[in-house]
Amino acid sequence: ESQWGLELPDPSWNGYPLHQAWKDHMAKELDTVISFWTDYSHDQEYGGSFSCLSRNGKLYDELKYLLPLGKQVGMYCRLYRTVERFRRAELLGAAKPGGEFLIRFARVEPPAKKCAFSVTKDGTPVKVQRTLFSESYYTLAMNERWRVTEETRYQNEAVEMLDRIVYWVRVDSSELSWTRFSRTHKAEDLAVPTMLLHLVDQLQEEDEEMSKKYAELEDWGVQRILKHLQVAVLDNISEDGQGLPGAFGREQNPGQAIEAGRYLLQDAQREGDTQLRDQVIDKFLLLPFHSGWDAEHGGFYSFRDVDNWVPHRLEWDMKLWWPHCEAMIAFLMGYSDSGDPTLLKIFNQVAEYTFCHFRDLVYREWYGYLIEDGRVGLSIKGGLYKGCYYNPQCMAMCEQILGALLQRTEDSK
Amino acid sequence: ESQWGLELPDPSWNGYPLHQAWKDHMAKELDTVISFWTDYSHDQEYGGSFSCLSRNGKLYDELKYLLPLGKQVGMYCRLYRTVERFRRAELLGAAKPGGEFLIRFARVEPPAKKCAFSVTKDGTPVKVQRTLFSESYYTLAMNERWRVTEETRYQNEAVEMLDRIVYWVRVDSSELSWTRFSRTHKAEDLAVPTMLLHLVDQLQEEDEEMSKKYAELEDWGVQRILKHLQVAVLDNISEDGQGLPGAFGREQNPGQAIEAGRYLLQDAQREGDTQLRDQVIDKFLLLPFHSGWDAEHGGFYSFRDVDNWVPHRLEWDMKLWWPHCEAMIAFLMGYSDSGDPTLLKIFNQVAEYTFCHFRDLVYREWYGYLIEDGRVGLSIKGGLYKGCYYNPQCMAMCEQILGALLQRTEDSK
Repeated sequence: ESQWGLELPDPSWNGYPLHQAWKDHMAKELDTVISFWTDYSHDQEYGGSFSCLSRNGKLYDELKYLLPLGKQVGMYCRLYRTVERFRRAELLGAAKPGGEFLIRFARVEPPAKKCAFSVTKDGTPVKVQRTLFSESYYTLAMNERWRVTEETRYQNEAVEMLDRIVYWVRVDSSELSWTRFSRTHKAEDLAVPTMLLHLVDQLQEEDEEMSKKYAELEDWGVQRILKHLQVAVLDNISEDGQGLPGAFGREQNPGQAIEAGRYLLQDAQREGDTQLRDQVIDKFLLLPFHSGWDAEHGGFYSFRDVDNWVPHRLEWDMKLWWPHCEAMIAFLMGYSDSGDPTLLKIFNQVAEYTFCHFRDLVYREWYGYLIEDGRVGLSIKGGLYKGCYYNPQCMAMCEQILGALLQRTEDSK
Repeated sequence: ESQWGLELPDPSWNGYPLHQAWKDHMAKELDTVISFWTDYSHDQEYGGSFSCLSRNGKLYDELKYLLPLGKQVGMYCRLYRTVERFRRAELLGAAKPGGEFLIRFARVEPPAKKCAFSVTKDGTPVKVQRTLFSESYYTLAMNERWRVTEETRYQNEAVEMLDRIVYWVRVDSSELSWTRFSRTHKAEDLAVPTMLLHLVDQLQEEDEEMSKKYAELEDWGVQRILKHLQVAVLDNISEDGQGLPGAFGREQNPGQAIEAGRYLLQDAQREGDTQLRDQVIDKFLLLPFHSGWDAEHGGFYSFRDVDNWVPHRLEWDMKLWWPHCEAMIAFLMGYSDSGDPTLLKIFNQVAEYTFCHFRDLVYREWYGYLIEDGRVGLSIKGGLYKGCYYNPQCMAMCEQILGALLQRTEDSK
């Protein structure tokens, strides 16, 4: 395999040339990353794809993990639909049986909606988690799968599953085993309303019927996320929006806060709500950046404690790829929406760290897990959680936002 | 707080002087560690103790975590019972209300036996896990609590709980939510039969009735552990003793293998089974040592992959305190039982690494979590899992084994 070196844009270039350089860079790297997955991940035999790929694309686990599988089907469809150069038979040819595999095998005891966390390559369930994330990425995949071929059974599945997830979150979670035992401190993880807002965005996209159906849920998601803003954006709060005692209650997850902020920004954009936009930039982007960025080595910490105790998570000081992807999108989007040059500066800083540390110079795709000082902790390119998702999504969105910024400059000439 | 420097025994001293030096070292350090917990952890108001203590003993979380709480009550009682210099009112005075707190508040919905993972300081349940480890250390605490004051309600609780745990493991685990969903690859974690064998040992100790009652369970535990020995000691196998597909199936946990080996050694000792002893030393001590020890930086890795893929756990290359504690006990015990000097050499090597890296030279107690190169990853002295347990147990057992070795040398003079 050849070297995949790529020169980074020079941040001293300002405005137009810098935007153009980053846009080219994102596009080129997006192509490279997608080629890794099309070359190595597809299961020609049973459909769908494998996510457990080593540094050079070797399969190290034949189980199919539902989170990365749902993400990859969704990502292939979205690229096929929305990016001209990805409208290729290769992507559709993998996404179609991938969607079929999911609709047939993801649910543990169909017609019940609970999905597996992992299944064998031919679809027998292996593990089930007490969360709603397998189901969420299943929903995303189903909706995207419907958008590319308009087979209604996929959209029906997406809507039914989302409605079930909402029921678990807002009415009764016993199917997830969340409420099997009485608990006084029932916590809400920021990932949950963020995931719901993400799914609402997905289903509402250019769809008037769904926009109406999920308008109330959208408001609910925004309000739930905003409740996590206390002294800082806290990762866990009580169901009635209060702080929680102990280390869990003080936990900050900078990547999760910024990801939530990105969905809030999109909402503020749609609603033309500049007050929300400014609040989000201030509290969900800049605040987690300042508390979460490692001033010594660079990169986002995985966890911080709001009172500066040592976070109790073993991986607290590791640098993970996805918060960096979400931060690039969020800061570029914030800059595009507000024109604040501070946000562009931070985008450049995060992008430079990310491309210098997470990219592999020898083989394609990114590392996902670095230790504090930026060296590689796990050399895998995919695993139980990491698949073809966060970095291609980031590059596709950045390419698109940068394109729009360049167009604006052109138009104003 | 003063400095807690301590000179390490010189390994070039052989035999008697080295044993004596290590024995003195263990005794002194055991006293130091216990003084940390008696000074900082006790809850005078509601009884029991807190485990979330920072580097210098400050409380960073007022929730009570049931694993370290059960362990601490058990450890205090055992030291009080078995080590002359710990027969102090201070230890009993903390263990009694600690046991009372557990019997009143550990179970989530008494009389059902499922225990919480964490409770508020006054005993309201907060979190519940789908495992049996809270219940196991509860059992240990109840049995020890009974041994120091002979209040039968504690022993009744211990026996009832152990019987329930056995029911979950061997008959029906639905109360733990293990079998809520059908699974083809039901896995057995090596920690489960190891925990059961540990509890059997605990209840059988100098108790003929219990020795009889749990004789069959003891055999079962030994046989289940031995089934994990395949190409190496595998952390996860199927319920019928077969290897499992994927990364989980290839997972090795050197600390867990050595801990299991230590309980097998004790069993071989009791039964006078030298064939089992030799097999255990070879496969459960030396094999995990050779595959699990980091030849470059020293210390045990947390996880390894039997085919040398990168383990999928984020903390795979971290060095945790407890495997080092278990290894010191196991290799010293193996040496004492077999006379093989290789095992003594490894004990010295592990002990030297452990005392150089996990001990804090400024404040008392040990760090629990180092990064690969031996630097401190989390500076906490206690947390959700780490409490007053593995290192005092290690030092108390090593002190005792070394004492017996010295006595043997005296006797043979």
